[in-house]
Amino acid sequence: MKLQTLSTNKSHGGVQGVYSHASAETGTEMAFSVFVPDHAPGAKLPVLWYLSGLTCTHANVTEKGEYRAACAEHGIIFVAPDTSPRGDDVPDDDGYDFGKGAGFYVDATKEPWAKNFRMRSYLESELPELVAASFPVDMARQGITGHSMGGHGALTISLRNPGRFRSTSAFSPIVSPLNCSWGEKALGGYIGTDRDDWRQYDACALIADGARLPDLLVDQGTADNFLGEQLKTHLLEQAVADAGISATIRMQDGYDHSYYFISTFLVEHVGWHAQRLKA
Amino acid sequence: MKLQTLSTNKSHGGVQGVYSHASAETGTEMAFSVFVPDHAPGAKLPVLWYLSGLTCTHANVTEKGEYRAACAEHGIIFVAPDTSPRGDDVPDDDGYDFGKGAGFYVDATKEPWAKNFRMRSYLESELPELVAASFPVDMARQGITGHSMGGHGALTISLRNPGRFRSTSAFSPIVSPLNCSWGEKALGGYIGTDRDDWRQYDACALIADGARLPDLLVDQGTADNFLGEQLKTHLLEQAVADAGISATIRMQDGYDHSYYFISTFLVEHVGWHAQRLKA
Repeated sequence: MKLQTLSTNKSHGGVQGVYSHASAETGTEMAFSVFVPDHAPGAKLPVLWYLSGLTCTHANVTEKGEYRAACAEHGIIFVAPDTSPRGDDVPDDDGYDFGKGAGFYVDATKEPWAKNFRMRSYLESELPELVAASFPVDMARQGITGHSMGGHGALTISLRNPGRFRSTSAFSPIVSPLNCSWGEKALGGYIGTDRDDWRQYDACALIADGARLPDLLVDQGTADNFLGEQLKTHLLEQAVADAGISATIRMQDGYDHSYYFISTFLVEHVGWHAQRLKA
Repeated sequence: MKLQTLSTNKSHGGVQGVYSHASAETGTEMAFSVFVPDHAPGAKLPVLWYLSGLTCTHANVTEKGEYRAACAEHGIIFVAPDTSPRGDDVPDDDGYDFGKGAGFYVDATKEPWAKNFRMRSYLESELPELVAASFPVDMARQGITGHSMGGHGALTISLRNPGRFRSTSAFSPIVSPLNCSWGEKALGGYIGTDRDDWRQYDACALIADGARLPDLLVDQGTADNFLGEQLKTHLLEQAVADAGISATIRMQDGYDHSYYFISTFLVEHVGWHAQRLKA
């Protein structure tokens, strides 16, 4: 697995890099960003994964996330992958909510998507191996977070891989693709019409089926245009209550779905993950 | 003067807005951004002006600057204007360093630029009046900063208007347009070939000619590609030393010209301005 460096910039005492590699899972060149804080020679640092939302690449959070000061303070490596395979040979859809920029963190089984849209395996296996081999990360201390579709990704990857992540949080997550039109379109298209197959990609269904987390932090803006029709935070509140999962789910008054919201609370999330990753 | 609201987003407890208005100075519609922290009803807050560099609009620092947490903490309004007039009727140049996106904070006297390229008067008179009339600002407590061409703008506007700004800082400023190719092209094009006319737009020349500041904070990255040929920080060091101006000019090891550098130190600049604006 060969890593290509696209850019590095010194920032907040560390190095913000953008890298790419030829992915065996997606069959494409995949870019991602990594912030490595200043650290002692030979030290291995905890890592926080950030999964992005619809239409995004690694660049959105890298430019707008305001996470580097907090990661430098706590000594945490921050990794931001892309949201789908890219390239002229990759199939796409006219909508912003399916195809490129909308991988939904699944392994597609339906054509023409199955060949390239393997973001689940990419993020559960291939990219962690590459990151572990290429950066000074302590893979025993991983946390995961994400926004919107990426919040869905963080929740479902963590729920399916018990013990891998010491900490899980989300911003404005899609909590139940079974119960919103974004999910219906994406999972119907990538996975097919058997809704039982969707449950592995639905945080609420995974919890109902027995998956557990040690605890959970979620922030959701009350002025988010997608709250009522797509995100439906109350379904997650009900799922964690029914399962007895310790969760802090905060409705943030007046905040919307943008990075102006995320950047307001991402520093606090980094600190929350740091408590658990460095305990 | 009528203000149009292009967008508002709640962020860090305050409101990040983008606005536009028909400018009498430039003869165009001008956009700018304003962050207003949460504040007591009726309160008037200090204001920090941020002038941007070549190719930028208000959007670059608004998205990448990471200033809102610090402005919210200190209760400071942050205003980011555009760098030139815009629109199909505005003359332009093929270069990134002249014409649109490169107003250099001058009042042009040469054709075809003189009609629209009046960024000096726009920023010294028109926009402050609009901001004072439209936002809860205490115009007796103003600070100014900027990056690169905007650092040049901050320094020269402050030096030409003694007493207006309680605090002046800059990131990677062009300190002497008389002594770099960016300056030669811009001032030659906008102002003409009489270099005596350029001195009002050259921080080092203004200081040599007697202009003074109470003190000054400048950060400059040592890995900045433009340092040797364009920025020439040492000329400002010499000018303030010769004039006996109290200045902190810091060469920041390994930092480049990007917002990864600016965002690292902008929080500290906001705090430095806050000390002076709230004294």
